[in-house]
Amino acid sequence: MTYNGKLPESLNVWGNRKIADNLIGEMWGKKGVFTCTVANTMTSIRPGISDAGDTPDLTLFTPAADAELLVSGKITCMKGIQINPGGIPTPATLTKAALELSGMPYYIVNGGSKISPYVPYFDMGGECGRDITSGDSVSNVKEGFEKGKILAESLARGYDYIVISESCAGGTTTALAVLMAMGTVKENLVSSSSPNNPKELKTQTVMQGLDAAGIEPGDLKDDPLRAIECVGDPMMPANVGMIVGAAKAGIPIVVGGGTQMAAVMAAAVALDPSVQGRMFQGTTRWLMNDPNSSMVKLMGSISDEIPIVYVNMDYNKSPYEGLQAYEWGYIKEGVGCGGASVAAIIGSKGEITCENILDRVHSIYREIMGIQ
Amino acid sequence: MTYNGKLPESLNVWGNRKIADNLIGEMWGKKGVFTCTVANTMTSIRPGISDAGDTPDLTLFTPAADAELLVSGKITCMKGIQINPGGIPTPATLTKAALELSGMPYYIVNGGSKISPYVPYFDMGGECGRDITSGDSVSNVKEGFEKGKILAESLARGYDYIVISESCAGGTTTALAVLMAMGTVKENLVSSSSPNNPKELKTQTVMQGLDAAGIEPGDLKDDPLRAIECVGDPMMPANVGMIVGAAKAGIPIVVGGGTQMAAVMAAAVALDPSVQGRMFQGTTRWLMNDPNSSMVKLMGSISDEIPIVYVNMDYNKSPYEGLQAYEWGYIKEGVGCGGASVAAIIGSKGEITCENILDRVHSIYREIMGIQ
Repeated sequence: MTYNGKLPESLNVWGNRKIADNLIGEMWGKKGVFTCTVANTMTSIRPGISDAGDTPDLTLFTPAADAELLVSGKITCMKGIQINPGGIPTPATLTKAALELSGMPYYIVNGGSKISPYVPYFDMGGECGRDITSGDSVSNVKEGFEKGKILAESLARGYDYIVISESCAGGTTTALAVLMAMGTVKENLVSSSSPNNPKELKTQTVMQGLDAAGIEPGDLKDDPLRAIECVGDPMMPANVGMIVGAAKAGIPIVVGGGTQMAAVMAAAVALDPSVQGRMFQGTTRWLMNDPNSSMVKLMGSISDEIPIVYVNMDYNKSPYEGLQAYEWGYIKEGVGCGGASVAAIIGSKGEITCENILDRVHSIYREIMGIQ
Repeated sequence: MTYNGKLPESLNVWGNRKIADNLIGEMWGKKGVFTCTVANTMTSIRPGISDAGDTPDLTLFTPAADAELLVSGKITCMKGIQINPGGIPTPATLTKAALELSGMPYYIVNGGSKISPYVPYFDMGGECGRDITSGDSVSNVKEGFEKGKILAESLARGYDYIVISESCAGGTTTALAVLMAMGTVKENLVSSSSPNNPKELKTQTVMQGLDAAGIEPGDLKDDPLRAIECVGDPMMPANVGMIVGAAKAGIPIVVGGGTQMAAVMAAAVALDPSVQGRMFQGTTRWLMNDPNSSMVKLMGSISDEIPIVYVNMDYNKSPYEGLQAYEWGYIKEGVGCGGASVAAIIGSKGEITCENILDRVHSIYREIMGIQ
């Protein structure tokens, strides 16, 4: 049965519906692959920048722990599990639920890490990113980009579509920096894993980075790889390359994530405008409803040919406070949780629903929290 | 159409036909994945040990160059292309032909390299292996083994069967060393990429390694991972883990390669006897006909439940001397060329033949040698 344009109830579309429907049609009932690119930027240990870890230092462990939770179900790189302050569990719990239900194969890509996950991953020749206030943040950008292209072309041989996502604490700040360097945005529109988005601190940090790199906002409009090199993070080159490579290989692309992925999409569009029409952002209702950021405004400044498909996951009904917190503005996105859910629903022709996914999230949550 | 037990003319079976037929039946017309684990051992630069490179030092570049040739078609890590002395091209030319014709997806696994390929690869936490005469050759053996298991289980989510193979110059010497340490063989039965197999030199080198490790032949019968640690190479832990993981995941396994993979199979059988019946060796007519080694005798000392399926590739009809040399005892196997060919034939229900593959080898050969 082909897709008849009737969106499953578990999903919503924002933006260009025609492109969304075309891509959903190509993915309907087909076999995709999920990837998550992990990386570190030393920007994340600046106090106040990232809540993706119980303490600033622990934010460096979160990407590796996310990869381990997804792939082996067991966290090896740190004690306990990766949580936000207040005990709110990583969105990898939702990603894992969607991947398990859909049976979708998935791979970890290592963009450049301080802490490497104890699972097999695709190495992209990257290194841990330096603090963006250095103005010289990412090494081997061209290598990561080229290897990203090759990787996506390799994966396209075996799968009908690809989800590209990230786990990189501090990534909304680096995204803002790259978007400012490229002139895509002039103000802070990015999100945060905390309900109290430290906007002023992020903007200050970004301006310090641009200063140190000797660039004015907008200077690097036509050179996104240089913008990443100056003030980005090592998740970006690989993911930009993967978008370009997957588009070249002709498979639909789900860009899983929130405002962190805006910089990746903006860079991909600048490098290869033909990627437009071949991807949509896959995210969550939480991200779309975030009063402290604006994915819609952000997207408007990148392209009007990249629709957003978001999943109506609702944790209000959850009996667990750690999950209810998602409804209070904590976390919202990450580890491709939105993209994985959207792909699971489309790949199953809508047979998988938010309800199924929530049940599975609960059993994963109970398991990792040790609840009987 | 299911497999009716009639083997395609391009293939032959040695050993347990019933197991071979069962596995071929499971793979018939199905979608597999090809993997090649690259690694280095410093043993390969000992003069006389390896011909898998134009000079002893260049043998360190051969695995990376093989990976690059397969994945990006362009060799970045060295000038020129990887050849044996005399200008005989790498068997990766045959692997590439089989992969292109079959459309089979393929991934590079990095077991531990001195020279890393400039393509995305699965990192397994390994390092370049030390000379086996140190008696302390491979680091992180347990990590490579565990990550191998996880990787194969991940791949089994997306594919119906797996080909596991290797490119590691010096690998027949390390294989002999591990087989001696385990007591699987008492004499040198391994092959060589040269028609003048330097058997005495290999045996001497192996005995020096066992001495340095303080072990007598057969001492490590029940501890193959320790045998690899002492006198193996970093291709081995990952590939042993992948066999065990793929068998656990329930998919048929093609062990692509020659006598180098004997140590891997022996170790996998010792660690998990249930892998028997779930794999066959996929190799070439050249290897089976090698008068200087004996795959059949070797296999007999490992298990009588691992059949060998080999492809009848014949380069006698080739107009190119560099390829005809395969008929004179050069090369014989490597980079999973036999396994990839066997899998291409079975996966296509015999529609792909040796003749098709030879045509494609010729065009690849012309391209890399710059022949019009």
